[in-house]
Amino acid sequence: MFIGAQVSLYPMTSRFVEVITSALSALAPYQGELRIETDDISTLMVGAPDPLFDAIRDLFAAAARQPDHVTMHVTLSRGCPGEPDDPSCHCETLVRAQDQTLAERTAQALKAVGAAPAAGVVVDIQFSLYVLGQDRHMDEIYGCIAFLKDSGTFLKSKNFCTRLRGDAGAVFETVRQAFLRFGPAEGHVTIDLTASANSPSASPV
Amino acid sequence: MFIGAQVSLYPMTSRFVEVITSALSALAPYQGELRIETDDISTLMVGAPDPLFDAIRDLFAAAARQPDHVTMHVTLSRGCPGEPDDPSCHCETLVRAQDQTLAERTAQALKAVGAAPAAGVVVDIQFSLYVLGQDRHMDEIYGCIAFLKDSGTFLKSKNFCTRLRGDAGAVFETVRQAFLRFGPAEGHVTIDLTASANSPSASPV
Repeated sequence: MFIGAQVSLYPMTSRFVEVITSALSALAPYQGELRIETDDISTLMVGAPDPLFDAIRDLFAAAARQPDHVTMHVTLSRGCPGEPDDPSCHCETLVRAQDQTLAERTAQALKAVGAAPAAGVVVDIQFSLYVLGQDRHMDEIYGCIAFLKDSGTFLKSKNFCTRLRGDAGAVFETVRQAFLRFGPAEGHVTIDLTASANSPSASPV
Repeated sequence: MFIGAQVSLYPMTSRFVEVITSALSALAPYQGELRIETDDISTLMVGAPDPLFDAIRDLFAAAARQPDHVTMHVTLSRGCPGEPDDPSCHCETLVRAQDQTLAERTAQALKAVGAAPAAGVVVDIQFSLYVLGQDRHMDEIYGCIAFLKDSGTFLKSKNFCTRLRGDAGAVFETVRQAFLRFGPAEGHVTIDLTASANSPSASPV
């Protein structure tokens, strides 16, 4: 399986290069576990979901701890049939999920979110989960939405996506669980995610 | 069918509120044809693909004509089974596409890109097209990628997405054609899109 993300950080400040460069140091602990390649639009990160989501969380948390308004866009993908198999992406959670019911996977997802370490910074996220190559894709989507509503990070439903809010630790764990526990374990699943922190706009719920 | 987008504009400048407010005036001509609702993370636009993509193009072109680095994230969706039917989203291109082969749809997509009016500003885009609820989703994806390579706006393939570059008129027409001509006409299709202009980074091809 091939698992990875295209990640872009957008600080809404004229010193955006400085904020991005500073936040990138949060990726240092993950350089050995992830393949990381940057161009002028996004940074590719390839690897197992444990370091992958930890790295994305730490990158955004580092930027969100600065005073400026900052957003991040992430395109996540697992199991794309057009990508080569990569042993570094091996994930035991996905292997075990093959034999588990939707109810079992939901229970484990909720447990993982409850155990997520706090990052100490509040973030907003909205994201869409896409289950590809399967006729009955909406069953898994509705199962995922039910999990999100019970996750403790749910803010509201929107057209095409779901809003989460909370500590970056719980929020990014919620997204990781959505990515790993819903949709077929061996299938093609993607996420389109936007994160935001320090927005000057009011946040109507 | 229900068709729409969640759109976020990110100017990388401390005067980001001013740039966003100024660019939003580009949406004025479309207020009658689109339902437009804004919260603190994104702006929902619902309506037919003609005004929808024109509005998104004009919004980003307006921001890109200012000197600052600016990016935009768009989540596009058509035919989501969880959304209600909306007569304002009716699209003749989709109706006709039901009886057309992949080759016929590709030819019409190329013709539409060739006829796109120039916006007079160069933009970079990367995007992913997702065809949901269908077992053989990759056939349509590979067909779409072949169209993109012939579109005149293709820059390069990346993991999980495709890079385009060119005048905003041709680039956004290419994305509209990808959205309308590939995947089943009555099916659930989404796009995860990132646009960029005035980036200080070099753009390796």
